[in-house]
Amino acid sequence: MSYNSFGRMFRFTTWGESHGPALGAVVDGCPPGIALSESDIQPWLDRRRPGTSRFTTQRREPDAVRILSGVFEGRTTGTPISLMIENVDQRSKDYGDVAKAYRPGHADYAYDAKYGFRDYRGGGRSSARETAARVAAGAVARLVVPQVRIRAWVESIGGDAIDPAAFDAEQIDANPFFCPDAAAALRWEALVDAARKAGSSLGAVVACEATGVPAGWGAPLYAKLDSELASGIMSINAVKGIEIGDGFAAAALSGEANADPMRPGADGPEFLANHAGGIAGGIATGQPIRLRAAFKPTSSILTPVPTITRDGEATDIATKGRHDPCVGIRGVPVVEAMMALVLADQALLHRAQCG
Amino acid sequence: MSYNSFGRMFRFTTWGESHGPALGAVVDGCPPGIALSESDIQPWLDRRRPGTSRFTTQRREPDAVRILSGVFEGRTTGTPISLMIENVDQRSKDYGDVAKAYRPGHADYAYDAKYGFRDYRGGGRSSARETAARVAAGAVARLVVPQVRIRAWVESIGGDAIDPAAFDAEQIDANPFFCPDAAAALRWEALVDAARKAGSSLGAVVACEATGVPAGWGAPLYAKLDSELASGIMSINAVKGIEIGDGFAAAALSGEANADPMRPGADGPEFLANHAGGIAGGIATGQPIRLRAAFKPTSSILTPVPTITRDGEATDIATKGRHDPCVGIRGVPVVEAMMALVLADQALLHRAQCG
Amino acid sequence: MSYNSFGRMFRFTTWGESHGPALGAVVDGCPPGIALSESDIQPWLDRRRPGTSRFTTQRREPDAVRILSGVFEGRTTGTPISLMIENVDQRSKDYGDVAKAYRPGHADYAYDAKYGFRDYRGGGRSSARETAARVAAGAVARLVVPQVRIRAWVESIGGDAIDPAAFDAEQIDANPFFCPDAAAALRWEALVDAARKAGSSLGAVVACEATGVPAGWGAPLYAKLDSELASGIMSINAVKGIEIGDGFAAAALSGEANADPMRPGADGPEFLANHAGGIAGGIATGQPIRLRAAFKPTSSILTPVPTITRDGEATDIATKGRHDPCVGIRGVPVVEAMMALVLADQALLHRAQCG
Amino acid sequence: MSYNSFGRMFRFTTWGESHGPALGAVVDGCPPGIALSESDIQPWLDRRRPGTSRFTTQRREPDAVRILSGVFEGRTTGTPISLMIENVDQRSKDYGDVAKAYRPGHADYAYDAKYGFRDYRGGGRSSARETAARVAAGAVARLVVPQVRIRAWVESIGGDAIDPAAFDAEQIDANPFFCPDAAAALRWEALVDAARKAGSSLGAVVACEATGVPAGWGAPLYAKLDSELASGIMSINAVKGIEIGDGFAAAALSGEANADPMRPGADGPEFLANHAGGIAGGIATGQPIRLRAAFKPTSSILTPVPTITRDGEATDIATKGRHDPCVGIRGVPVVEAMMALVLADQALLHRAQCG
Repeated sequence: MSYNSFGRMFRFTTWGESHGPALGAVVDGCPPGIALSESDIQPWLDRRRPGTSRFTTQRREPDAVRILSGVFEGRTTGTPISLMIENVDQRSKDYGDVAKAYRPGHADYAYDAKYGFRDYRGGGRSSARETAARVAAGAVARLVVPQVRIRAWVESIGGDAIDPAAFDAEQIDANPFFCPDAAAALRWEALVDAARKAGSSLGAVVACEATGVPAGWGAPLYAKLDSELASGIMSINAVKGIEIGDGFAAAALSGEANADPMRPGADGPEFLANHAGGIAGGIATGQPIRLRAAFKPTSSILTPVPTITRDGEATDIATKGRHDPCVGIRGVPVVEAMMALVLADQALLHRAQCG
Repeated sequence: MSYNSFGRMFRFTTWGESHGPALGAVVDGCPPGIALSESDIQPWLDRRRPGTSRFTTQRREPDAVRILSGVFEGRTTGTPISLMIENVDQRSKDYGDVAKAYRPGHADYAYDAKYGFRDYRGGGRSSARETAARVAAGAVARLVVPQVRIRAWVESIGGDAIDPAAFDAEQIDANPFFCPDAAAALRWEALVDAARKAGSSLGAVVACEATGVPAGWGAPLYAKLDSELASGIMSINAVKGIEIGDGFAAAALSGEANADPMRPGADGPEFLANHAGGIAGGIATGQPIRLRAAFKPTSSILTPVPTITRDGEATDIATKGRHDPCVGIRGVPVVEAMMALVLADQALLHRAQCG
Repeated sequence: MSYNSFGRMFRFTTWGESHGPALGAVVDGCPPGIALSESDIQPWLDRRRPGTSRFTTQRREPDAVRILSGVFEGRTTGTPISLMIENVDQRSKDYGDVAKAYRPGHADYAYDAKYGFRDYRGGGRSSARETAARVAAGAVARLVVPQVRIRAWVESIGGDAIDPAAFDAEQIDANPFFCPDAAAALRWEALVDAARKAGSSLGAVVACEATGVPAGWGAPLYAKLDSELASGIMSINAVKGIEIGDGFAAAALSGEANADPMRPGADGPEFLANHAGGIAGGIATGQPIRLRAAFKPTSSILTPVPTITRDGEATDIATKGRHDPCVGIRGVPVVEAMMALVLADQALLHRAQCG
Repeated sequence: MSYNSFGRMFRFTTWGESHGPALGAVVDGCPPGIALSESDIQPWLDRRRPGTSRFTTQRREPDAVRILSGVFEGRTTGTPISLMIENVDQRSKDYGDVAKAYRPGHADYAYDAKYGFRDYRGGGRSSARETAARVAAGAVARLVVPQVRIRAWVESIGGDAIDPAAFDAEQIDANPFFCPDAAAALRWEALVDAARKAGSSLGAVVACEATGVPAGWGAPLYAKLDSELASGIMSINAVKGIEIGDGFAAAALSGEANADPMRPGADGPEFLANHAGGIAGGIATGQPIRLRAAFKPTSSILTPVPTITRDGEATDIATKGRHDPCVGIRGVPVVEAMMALVLADQALLHRAQCG
């Protein structure tokens, strides 16, 4: 089933295709009285915007957002907030081959198997352009949880990881890779350039941290905070893995090594470790929330790959058009947005049940 | 917010605590006319049942399921199916310390932070006993998608992994670890015994595969099949990571290496690889669905860990009571159940939208 | 689709058939820390219980409720509350004819058309016994909104209405009809006796009022308070109409006559009328919430009616078994329960969005 | 809580205010491959459009709809369909008084009580303009259930009802009142003219019938077809009552009189009556679905009514601006749209569970 809404209380619904006239999001359930204008949203979209360096797609989109409803005299009214971004730089003629054959790794074959046909222009609905709508909605979410500070960064590209000891938060916005390690950023320039020139692409791991989340947000089991985050992050195009805290590394630990011991602190417990990523039993502990998302390499590559046509004939396909050589890079603002959207929802849900 | 339902069309709601009189699940939305009796469910519960080897908790529970509604003359009627399992072997007196202090890594502190107090007996709602209700619901789900074959296994314990080359499906049910590699199963005996004797515990990675899923199930983006699986699997107690197909390994690959090339097959496309875990663009490709879940080590350990009391005093806590030394082992039937539950839901959703 | 849950934040799911072993409800999303035991629920069930006068079905059910989860040391924990009521006095042999032919006005034919077969014993899932589960859940809901006072009554039976001028709230529980007009209650004795003896049945109108609902609960449009109440009340078996405030009578008024003028009051506005039933624009105004529900006459009657068999042959059917001659009477505690359930949900939703 | 989505499988979300730049709907879950263009939607919007006679508001809106997503090469793709209608003829300066005082019967006070402030221009979100978005979404829904024929009409205005014996379907679109009785239409001209000139307004009852709905759509109890329709119809602005089939009249009948006897027909059962409005036990019987909705008189009237200001002072208010003298008239296409939306949803849900 097509299902394009997310959230239980603070909900958003996105719509739009890569080469349609526009795309957007409707945010429903937002508390009233929050100061909101386009200028609260635009900076986050600019951060995700394509065409800002040679390491992202060369499509030129201003990604200018308009608020069409739900705001009056500069404040949210409590009614649905409709956000729209017009598409400007479509070049649909680039996609002739894609109409006839399936790009391996891409959604082409699966869409046809499901729906019988597909909007192949620029990937249609499965294009990473959809994430602009999330980033816009996420900007509203941030305003709902102003006490929370969210930041994401790229942790590795093509298997080349940052040095944790070199982590410098100020570096993140100082290079085109959202990389907190200046030395790694230099290496990645060469790495991504090489992939781009070879008509190849690279995967990446994005990490994200939210501080200021109060103990108590979340829920046991089916809507546990880990689970809501997993659902939200995994719903981003190209994400194939998610871990909370130590994640897979925790599976190799003993119980003592994985415990996050506590001692009395000035202001509630002080934790001596954070293997759990700030979530125990599905509920925030008050520590930083930490997660990691695996982005596969962009499926659209210039290197020809064996495939079949819609008629079932063997062929090779190389994807022309403009693409990110490493879609994980622009995943950074998207992961942040999903973190904000999940936390805004949880904040309202917690208030509903626990006052 | 407490939220204890899962699924959109084939939905289930679970209830019950570790030391309450019973636990159960209500399955709603099941198609009518499916042959169903307790004997279709019991074998799956027996597979998950505690106390069957020295490598699981020594709590003795028959886990006998009763169907209280939704079945008439041996077939589902299309109305809600209520499943109940009585608790028999509670020993609540083991938990005195837990009432007063927080076990690190466990849900204790977070529950208190959220709800103001908690049912501490045996972990209350956060106990792994809740997974019995899922396994019962999952047994019904399997009957909804009889064309699908699901099997899970343990891939590593405490960092000690199986040899993929030694994979033998018949081994999985031949040892107490659901281990497909006989040599690894022998090593794990020693490993888990040592942890148990040391009052420690171990994490594990569980893998799961579903074959027979037709191309087309799933959805783009917010309910993408990856995302539904991530939400379901991550909602299991102790799971802190999930990957679909190559998952985090894909983040280290190039686009060519990660592509799953196709060529014409007898019956639709033949895929030459399955890095994507059988899901592209959120939709099943017809290949096997493959995922991996990271279980952290059981938080309840006999080794004392620094913590605080409810009154904020420093103390050490060791968890008495009976516990699994490696909760991932009994995670195998639970992961299978969640796979079945997600796929049954997707089967109905696909039929709804695409006929 | 089978769909047996209700509510968005304070949600409940019911299960069970008339002649199954038990029926019940799972209440999810209840705030923690509320004092709750079976004795808070039982009185409401007793009020709805069959067999208490000759004007209701002669089935003898103790309707004893058990709380199976979600309560610890006498208080709600915030986790799902499972409520179970065992069926005791089934007499399935009464229903042989019903298995073979369709009772006009009853769910028989429609269930078969939908599901291919049905549990015909006592109406199966479509029996009014299901309402016991709602009344139990409603008793929990009342505790969530202790500031609200809810009372319902029968306003007419078989077209014979009470005299509004004779309304006396103390009469409501003083006669077997929940009738606030003592004279009408006397007339109804004769009326319902006659219908019962003639093997017939009668429809009824139930009115319900909730006071103490603060201005602001509710929502514009799709979840407007009128709409949530309509959905909840109309989901009760045998209800075929619902009106809020003046309802259909308002359709005959002019704008001036229907306005509820305001003037300054000690404590917010004072309203000079309540045509709107306490809801304007979908949101509570602080006035009493007022609604009215139309219950059709019980479809199960001893008078033979032309119908067809499952094989499509013509026949006549008279419904043996034990039935309420006027199902609207026992609808009173059920309407109250649904009012409580909707308001509890709205209370939490309002707190979530508006703090 | 703000909640602006409707439907379970075929879902839509509306957004927009009376005097904002635009309003719209996002339709999600639509089956793929359905031929759809603006020309399938525009005629239904034109039918609802304001300013077409002196009996509706004089606001001049072209209500031109644009499809912004979800359609490719003239067919639905299965992804969300975004529909947008720009507002053209706002005159916000008419609403100065409304900003300072509360119009009785209108949403003003309740919105302020809920949200702390409101968009008062033209009623903001509570304006009947929102129904344009429903009508657009409903046009898509009609295409999902092409076997169903839906028609609504006005049954009474200000208490003056049509003569059922004079019902002539061809009259419905032949007069400005959607009135199937030519004589009544003449009377209503005078009636509505008089109300308009007096600065008053009138209520109305709208009836709606759907034929071609197959037996089996719907569900028992909480999503019973009666309940889904009640929720949908009651969510329309100004609706305060809904009845299915005989509704409140059934409450005055005996069981025999209310039964819908059956006899064998050529093609399943033939029903000898339709008191139930085509729904038994929540499920369609294959007979025409029939319902009736009560629209209160427009709250915006030129006659001054006592009220209070935002500051709590006594005043009188008369609503300037342009308004429908009888909002029920333009309710006809809106009720039809909601009928279509509910039935499209039920069609998909039935297919999901029952194949």
